[in-house]
Amino acid sequence: MSNRVRDLFRIQGYILLVLAASLTIPCIMAFYTGEQEAASGFSLTLLFCIAAGAIIVKFVSPSPARIKARDGFLVVSTSWLVASVVGAMPFVISGAIPSPVDAFFESCSGFTTTGASILSDIESLPKSILFWRSFAHWLGGMGILVFVMALLPSLGISGQNVANAETPGPTKDKIKAKFSDTAKDLYLIYIGMTILETILLVFGGLSWYDALVHTFGTVGTGGFSCYNDSVGHFGSAYVEWIITIFMFLSGVNFNLYYLTGKGGLSCLYRDEEFRFYASIVVGFSGVIFLCRSIFGGFAAIGETLRDTVFQVVSVLTTTGYMTNDFDTWPTFGRMLIFTLFFVGGCSSSTGGGVKCVRVLVAMKLVRRGISIKLHPRRIAHVTLNRRELNNDVVIHITNFIFTYLLIMACGFLLISLNGFDFMSSFSAAATCLGNIGPGFGTFGPSMNFSVMSDFSKLVCSFLMLFGRLELFTMLVLFSKHYWNANKC
Amino acid sequence: MSNRVRDLFRIQGYILLVLAASLTIPCIMAFYTGEQEAASGFSLTLLFCIAAGAIIVKFVSPSPARIKARDGFLVVSTSWLVASVVGAMPFVISGAIPSPVDAFFESCSGFTTTGASILSDIESLPKSILFWRSFAHWLGGMGILVFVMALLPSLGISGQNVANAETPGPTKDKIKAKFSDTAKDLYLIYIGMTILETILLVFGGLSWYDALVHTFGTVGTGGFSCYNDSVGHFGSAYVEWIITIFMFLSGVNFNLYYLTGKGGLSCLYRDEEFRFYASIVVGFSGVIFLCRSIFGGFAAIGETLRDTVFQVVSVLTTTGYMTNDFDTWPTFGRMLIFTLFFVGGCSSSTGGGVKCVRVLVAMKLVRRGISIKLHPRRIAHVTLNRRELNNDVVIHITNFIFTYLLIMACGFLLISLNGFDFMSSFSAAATCLGNIGPGFGTFGPSMNFSVMSDFSKLVCSFLMLFGRLELFTMLVLFSKHYWNANKC
Repeated sequence: MSNRVRDLFRIQGYILLVLAASLTIPCIMAFYTGEQEAASGFSLTLLFCIAAGAIIVKFVSPSPARIKARDGFLVVSTSWLVASVVGAMPFVISGAIPSPVDAFFESCSGFTTTGASILSDIESLPKSILFWRSFAHWLGGMGILVFVMALLPSLGISGQNVANAETPGPTKDKIKAKFSDTAKDLYLIYIGMTILETILLVFGGLSWYDALVHTFGTVGTGGFSCYNDSVGHFGSAYVEWIITIFMFLSGVNFNLYYLTGKGGLSCLYRDEEFRFYASIVVGFSGVIFLCRSIFGGFAAIGETLRDTVFQVVSVLTTTGYMTNDFDTWPTFGRMLIFTLFFVGGCSSSTGGGVKCVRVLVAMKLVRRGISIKLHPRRIAHVTLNRRELNNDVVIHITNFIFTYLLIMACGFLLISLNGFDFMSSFSAAATCLGNIGPGFGTFGPSMNFSVMSDFSKLVCSFLMLFGRLELFTMLVLFSKHYWNANKC
Repeated sequence: MSNRVRDLFRIQGYILLVLAASLTIPCIMAFYTGEQEAASGFSLTLLFCIAAGAIIVKFVSPSPARIKARDGFLVVSTSWLVASVVGAMPFVISGAIPSPVDAFFESCSGFTTTGASILSDIESLPKSILFWRSFAHWLGGMGILVFVMALLPSLGISGQNVANAETPGPTKDKIKAKFSDTAKDLYLIYIGMTILETILLVFGGLSWYDALVHTFGTVGTGGFSCYNDSVGHFGSAYVEWIITIFMFLSGVNFNLYYLTGKGGLSCLYRDEEFRFYASIVVGFSGVIFLCRSIFGGFAAIGETLRDTVFQVVSVLTTTGYMTNDFDTWPTFGRMLIFTLFFVGGCSSSTGGGVKCVRVLVAMKLVRRGISIKLHPRRIAHVTLNRRELNNDVVIHITNFIFTYLLIMACGFLLISLNGFDFMSSFSAAATCLGNIGPGFGTFGPSMNFSVMSDFSKLVCSFLMLFGRLELFTMLVLFSKHYWNANKC
């Protein structure tokens, strides 16, 4: 076995052991609540993970050479794939989701923190199964933070950390410190947020179980709920505002929490991406609130405002929780929500999508385009946080956006083979690639993805993986050069 | 009056005189066929144009200073606006299209060579009025060739002539020769194509009137017909193939005709944009043909092939003629047609849209994006026609595409205020900005734009102007800096 294959295997062995450790929680829960089928599903998967993981780690010796940066693409892609496949096993074995394709879709939607579901009646599933589904969000969200902060820079996929690459913070020595330091600090913030939200939700009257499930969905910007009507189930203004706030916080660049801790709140305001992110929330909420009030009457203003902000934050951060079916809003409001499908959270957050910083830079490029026409001889630079953006970074960002649109167009065409209407197919591709969750029409907030053909479900699952892993991590694996060069 | 205002007025005076000359043809036709209301509409407009044009040219003396490049934005935008307004006058005065907003939309759709219509029953209109409507396409097409070849480069909106900027041809000395030389040669090709197609159509059994109207719509890549069922009216394979061929030819970079004349057919093949354009026609026609055959049965293969190619070429070149309602095709086929909405003809043709060369460069950027990830240290250049693309040109092209998408999104949001479904609003914005003509749903090939509110019609009209004038020509006029700097 070559060194690189050996390394790849060994890392997957560790991933399996981490999954085994994670599976113990829902496994114990299943035994405790007497959900026998779920219990057997979890224990069998657990046994498989421990056995396979232990065998690999024991018998595949670490290679003497260090892992190369370019092998990272394969390692990261395989990790998410392995997690999605293993995560689907309890669903299939327990009979909760008998179809393997459906189970893979659901598990993939969990680990990529998408939140799109093929379940028509969520509440009919065993509690431990629903817990595992949401726990996948939490694991996926943590995985993404490590991936974005510690791995991406060494894979050469920049454009995410532009805003903070040159500011002092935990990312500065990210490559040197590799996983350990950066990851440890991120875990602390992530776990801190998880604990705080859970307690606040319990304080609002939720059971510990409900509080945990919805916290996992929030901090991972996932969106799985254990109720058919999502967060709307609780009918509590307090709970909705708490979740809104934590969704918003999970969509913020996690580096900013360090900087704010050191330099005070002014650091938040000084960050251009954060200002852009916050003004989208305020601007879109305001316009949609007005639009809904004008078209729908000014009754229940408080409620309209609350669930408008909730939906805007939920879609912008790519969480996908619902308190109100936005597909029933006036057309203009729906279309504004749809444009948010193409924005996403801040860079280095658990949110998906194109990311605010890239959209911001693209808009600055448009402004520069106009400026160049007016002053052809003046050199117009694109700046971010008062620093001039390196030309390479601009090229990376434009590449990313074109690639994003191209993959979305391909996904949309493949899904359209299924014969759904335009809005449904288009929004399905956009919501899966952006890791949001609900779409429009057939895949709207009150619907689900079960009506899709297996082929379309697989297309959607891969769109989720593409989106979650910053496109190129997966895309390079489809390049002939990647495998050719590896042979040498 | 300042020099710049004086120059602007003087040029509009000449535009009015050109319009007056053009109006004489439908005016004589109206008198000859005894269409009294149309005749009065044309004669009054004609008198207005001659009077206003003559007064301006006589009394506004030319300014001593030469026109500055940046004034070109205002001159070009105003010219198209003046033509659209004046072109609408016969519609309103004759009572053919009583509403001024409708008439402006129709005239604007003519001069921008879009071909979107608010008319439900085209055939009920006087023949001279329909002639004028199509003649606007022809005038608009010619105007665009001059604009693109002779004016754009001096406005700094490049990215259109990338493919040929460095090859010997009429564009080489474009700025030095200003209008005269380049324009004269282009007129010859354009007029030659017009004569040839008209004769071939008459040879196919069309009346001279029908042949001329459909030739205007073809060579200008406009799409207005004088029949409700467009080119499908004739039910003639010969006519459809002739129009397909001339639509294709009108979407080719006109510079290539020179080069081919000098260097033989190999020049065509050597041009990367042409290869891309031709392979889109072949590829999309092939896949859609297969898709329609599989889903719709293999009966009438010849006919299916013919109108598939016709529709692909019609949408790709942004003409918009119809022989078959593509909105009734299987979903996958419809969606493939929809993706063509974002391509357009070749640069320096009469076709609209993003233009093949820009889409091609964007796709090369995606490929380079992958390549950079695999070989971070290798410098990857984007080449076109075996020449390395200047970084500035790449930036211009990405700016253009982002701006295109941004304007489309804004147009889509404004149109969605009207409450149409997603597909209809979205395709209306795309078809108007791309100067195509028909959309999908409410604005599909067998429908029209009459159901829109006046506000939406004006939004669509401006989208047509934005698209036709390469976005920035109009966009800079909305910039504060443009007017501020002018004050100095």
